[in-house]
Amino acid sequence: MSQMNILLTNDDGVNALGINKLADFLKNYYNTIVVAPERERSAVSHAITLHKPLRLTNIRKESNIEIYYVNGTPSDCIKLAIDVVLDNKPDIVISGINWGLNLGTDILYSGTVSAAIEAAINGIPSMAVSLEEDADLNDKTIYIFIKNLIEETIERGLPKHTLLNVNIPKKIKNDKGIKITSLGLINYVENFTKRIDPRGKEYYWMAGKLLDNYKDEGSDIVSVKNGYISITPIHFDLTEYTLAEKLKNWNIKIN
Amino acid sequence: MSQMNILLTNDDGVNALGINKLADFLKNYYNTIVVAPERERSAVSHAITLHKPLRLTNIRKESNIEIYYVNGTPSDCIKLAIDVVLDNKPDIVISGINWGLNLGTDILYSGTVSAAIEAAINGIPSMAVSLEEDADLNDKTIYIFIKNLIEETIERGLPKHTLLNVNIPKKIKNDKGIKITSLGLINYVENFTKRIDPRGKEYYWMAGKLLDNYKDEGSDIVSVKNGYISITPIHFDLTEYTLAEKLKNWNIKIN
Repeated sequence: MSQMNILLTNDDGVNALGINKLADFLKNYYNTIVVAPERERSAVSHAITLHKPLRLTNIRKESNIEIYYVNGTPSDCIKLAIDVVLDNKPDIVISGINWGLNLGTDILYSGTVSAAIEAAINGIPSMAVSLEEDADLNDKTIYIFIKNLIEETIERGLPKHTLLNVNIPKKIKNDKGIKITSLGLINYVENFTKRIDPRGKEYYWMAGKLLDNYKDEGSDIVSVKNGYISITPIHFDLTEYTLAEKLKNWNIKIN
Repeated sequence: MSQMNILLTNDDGVNALGINKLADFLKNYYNTIVVAPERERSAVSHAITLHKPLRLTNIRKESNIEIYYVNGTPSDCIKLAIDVVLDNKPDIVISGINWGLNLGTDILYSGTVSAAIEAAINGIPSMAVSLEEDADLNDKTIYIFIKNLIEETIERGLPKHTLLNVNIPKKIKNDKGIKITSLGLINYVENFTKRIDPRGKEYYWMAGKLLDNYKDEGSDIVSVKNGYISITPIHFDLTEYTLAEKLKNWNIKIN
């Protein structure tokens, strides 16, 4: 295969270990460009920066790798990379490696996944890759698996407006392998902790305990819990077509 | 119908005209609670606040209306309203009236729509309501239409994990009426404007010109452009089930 161009971003920021270790591995095989937020932007979801100027700063430029940071969100990074940094669309976009899993309905809050969706909106094959916390980022297996998945994705292609959401458990086990999954529905209980500040005023802190009774065997949540790498194909057409047909029979008056 | 509890939020902030005029209208019929961001949070998408304390401030408390603001995002507002402000889940959540349309794939960036999704995740019927800019917020038709839609939604119900995305054109015309639509795919060109700051340094500003050749007659984009109120039923299960079946035949090696 001739030299592919691969674009990396994340929501942990340009200095995060996950994206740097992945970039240093991939540059041995592909032309690798990193455009990432200058600081951590977790839980920013698909936010974009409309109301302030964006700065793009190059911090590394070698034959097979370039690294830039942006004072914006992961989605800003993808937009800027495509419109400003790169002459041509990259062959593939990887968002990650994120430190921490992005599973189930929680991906709606995820900057990591949103950046990959932004790439897919722009017609570029993409995947979000997240790793369970406490994993060993020096484990070579992680990077070889990602490279294998990149090559299979390029060879097979992804349908328009789809992408892959990949979650890797703490320890990749050969006897477990990979599961193709669906997004599990995550339910939280006790979302907030109420506290009192030093001046006696109340405040709330997002806590959120995951209900631990989740049992859907085909879901990403259960698969990763059981030690499998989870690959969930996702799309972003939020239209609910079945309900649309029903709504046509509703009696909605204008006045 | 006995007194319904209706929860309002938005992403234009607690002082925006749209939410206040809607609340003042709805309080004549329902018990109305507003929990909204203290300032504008447009394009924050589904962001939630994990890393700082949230403050909840009450600024109005009368028999049929209560108004609170939060130093967070629209999704934070919904979570806090459900967990902290309200004793019971509201009967319905309205996110809006947003000043400006939320159409097509752009809803992925919308704080307005995300707040309604947050409600649906929590099992509450919900809708996002957006109004074309330059509309007349004193036009009574807007509020009567919304009330009619609320009552029909409560009576018919919405399937689990679905909600309504409503867009209202500048001028509601009786001869046009309502269209049940799908989300159009929005393509932007020339996303960024490059400028030079007073000290000679480059910066970028998000511009984004909408391609004006959009022709999908069944879409929300074309319907609103043609003067119809658009109602798109949406869901948030991003799993692409068809592709999942194909992926099971991919040959993805772990190492």
